Amino acid sequence: MDIKEEALKKHKAWQGKIEVISRVNIKSREDLSLAYTPGVAEACLEIKNDNKKSYELTRRGHLVAVITDGSAVLGLGNIGPEASMPVMEGKCVLLKEFAGVDAIPICLDTNDVDELVRTIYLISKSFGAINLEDISAPRCFEIEKRLKEICDIPVFHDDQHGTAIVLGAALYNAFKLTGRKLGDAKIVINGAGAAGIAIARHLINMKFGNVILCDINGAIYDGAENLNPYQAEMSKITNLFKEKGSLKDVIKNSDVFIGVSRANLVDEEMIKSMNHDSIVFPMANPIPEIMPSLAKSYGARIVGSGRSDSKNQINNLLAFPGIFKGLLESSAKKVTEKMKIDASISIANIISDTELNDDYIIPDPFDKRVVIKVSEAVKNNKDNF
Amino acid sequence: MDIKEEALKKHKAWQGKIEVISRVNIKSREDLSLAYTPGVAEACLEIKNDNKKSYELTRRGHLVAVITDGSAVLGLGNIGPEASMPVMEGKCVLLKEFAGVDAIPICLDTNDVDELVRTIYLISKSFGAINLEDISAPRCFEIEKRLKEICDIPVFHDDQHGTAIVLGAALYNAFKLTGRKLGDAKIVINGAGAAGIAIARHLINMKFGNVILCDINGAIYDGAENLNPYQAEMSKITNLFKEKGSLKDVIKNSDVFIGVSRANLVDEEMIKSMNHDSIVFPMANPIPEIMPSLAKSYGARIVGSGRSDSKNQINNLLAFPGIFKGLLESSAKKVTEKMKIDASISIANIISDTELNDDYIIPDPFDKRVVIKVSEAVKNNKDNF
Repeated sequence: MDIKEEALKKHKAWQGKIEVISRVNIKSREDLSLAYTPGVAEACLEIKNDNKKSYELTRRGHLVAVITDGSAVLGLGNIGPEASMPVMEGKCVLLKEFAGVDAIPICLDTNDVDELVRTIYLISKSFGAINLEDISAPRCFEIEKRLKEICDIPVFHDDQHGTAIVLGAALYNAFKLTGRKLGDAKIVINGAGAAGIAIARHLINMKFGNVILCDINGAIYDGAENLNPYQAEMSKITNLFKEKGSLKDVIKNSDVFIGVSRANLVDEEMIKSMNHDSIVFPMANPIPEIMPSLAKSYGARIVGSGRSDSKNQINNLLAFPGIFKGLLESSAKKVTEKMKIDASISIANIISDTELNDDYIIPDPFDKRVVIKVSEAVKNNKDNF
Repeated sequence: MDIKEEALKKHKAWQGKIEVISRVNIKSREDLSLAYTPGVAEACLEIKNDNKKSYELTRRGHLVAVITDGSAVLGLGNIGPEASMPVMEGKCVLLKEFAGVDAIPICLDTNDVDELVRTIYLISKSFGAINLEDISAPRCFEIEKRLKEICDIPVFHDDQHGTAIVLGAALYNAFKLTGRKLGDAKIVINGAGAAGIAIARHLINMKFGNVILCDINGAIYDGAENLNPYQAEMSKITNLFKEKGSLKDVIKNSDVFIGVSRANLVDEEMIKSMNHDSIVFPMANPIPEIMPSLAKSYGARIVGSGRSDSKNQINNLLAFPGIFKGLLESSAKKVTEKMKIDASISIANIISDTELNDDYIIPDPFDKRVVIKVSEAVKNNKDNF
């Protein structure tokens, strides 16, 4: 099967991957008078008196807005609102199919941060939660931060936190397998954009160890030049011993390598310079920083990537459906750090100690226990800030 | 049945009147790779190269946005975004149930005209058409006008044009029954807001005769004081003989009265002062300008209202589902005057000359021929500006 040709054929046949249906049959004047005028006025008045009622009298409590500005879609760059819609519809499909959550895709025709924040705020009262998607860094940090401050519904940028949660789960099990203790490891992340920074922050919150972020200029350290404000903020809590130099320099004697950068940046020498029982997650898509089989052959013990044709696929699908299910079912107003940490541990713990092995550190995305465990982790932390 | 209590109970049970479903089953990695990454990239690239492809590769070509700012919802006034959602969901239900059209409700948290126009424009690339709903006059005129100029999808304010189209249909048949010729009639409209102005314009476009708009200050005429810009514009094409005075003054010797104002403004004397075989459409909701039975008893020959418990119910439901079905199926970029005129005539012509009588001038909203005829009227005029 030529996947490109087949996908295009399918998209034409589907005529849209989502559909809006009516939950009410309108067959008579009585039906009309209850679902529409004059009866509908009662539902309006109830909500007018208490806005929280919008969660029980409208679809709001089941509904996520999947929002992008089309600025960083897949590896395609800034492709605009119309062209990014197939991805956003796909995300809505996954939310429904994996978590039973309704989702509406909205692609915005601006890349201006102020305008994006204002527009998303203005539509936010129609939804129970917001999933930001494929918005380029560092803009995505400010957009998410400002929206979290002004919106009274949860805002979650999946490219950051979804990826971080699933990597946290994989690393949790990899530590278990390699006998590492929390706090001791040296973890190198190549790529200091949306995913890299979010992963770094999450792994620090999970207390895995000393995280070093690298970008194209090498290791980020406190006082380095040319850092954007988000990297500068990260430099205060990462790279505790202020290591300087290229990726090749700092990957030496590290325990963990995580790549969220570009294809083929990691070579044999770099893998071989890592500590014994090294853990390597080259996540660049579709071609990773180093092919998993190569990393293994150079001595990495545990390898995971975004690829579905390798073992240990680190797939956002393990996190976001359960995250939104949990947020909506608990009417949570915020996504907290504790939710994310517990989501990682919940995903990891789906694999029992007897099942756990170097090629099975993370559950299959189709494992039906995942969405339940993740949503429970979120719900249990609803009021835990 | 207490309709208020029952409607509230139903709204609680429904948990939202609409639902988003997936049109794609995701049961395997292959399904994932076609509907989502990596296959989805092909659909994105096709659209990136030709934005029109968004109509065939995403849901856009089947999808209407039902948008309000909550400023003039039913008779409830400015109730805000959350409280207006039950009405918007209801509208989406009607679009699906009557025309098979998908619709998404979006309630915006601002009443600022500039901000509304910009926000609606920024989300417009995700939809095939926009239905503006329950936005207060005269703001709605400017919002619709500006959106029509900048959006490349059709924009339709149902409170204006839906009402106008259905009234045009009713009047067309009432003229037929009373033997009136187009062009000769004196038509008085009380209420010079969104609906009143749109009805006046549409009846003039259909060449029914001399239309006089009245508001709380009496008849509007060219040169009158205290007119808003939209009323001033209307004063140039209405009230051809510059009649002045109150509704009571100008309704004398008129052929048609249309009320889009408030309850119980029309009395026995006013009806009796109209011409023989008068046509009276008191549309105020839920209590009309004069009760239909009273108008009849005072000598009006043909009476219609918005009430479902009287004959000749003039219901927007006769127009908007077919309008949007036609717009989407023909990929129309604009709603034209000719579409609206032909929609009125199509609705009227559903009733054959042998069926037509004083109590049956307009089809039943559940008559399945209506949506087909209206959508055909729209499609036949796709390129007719």
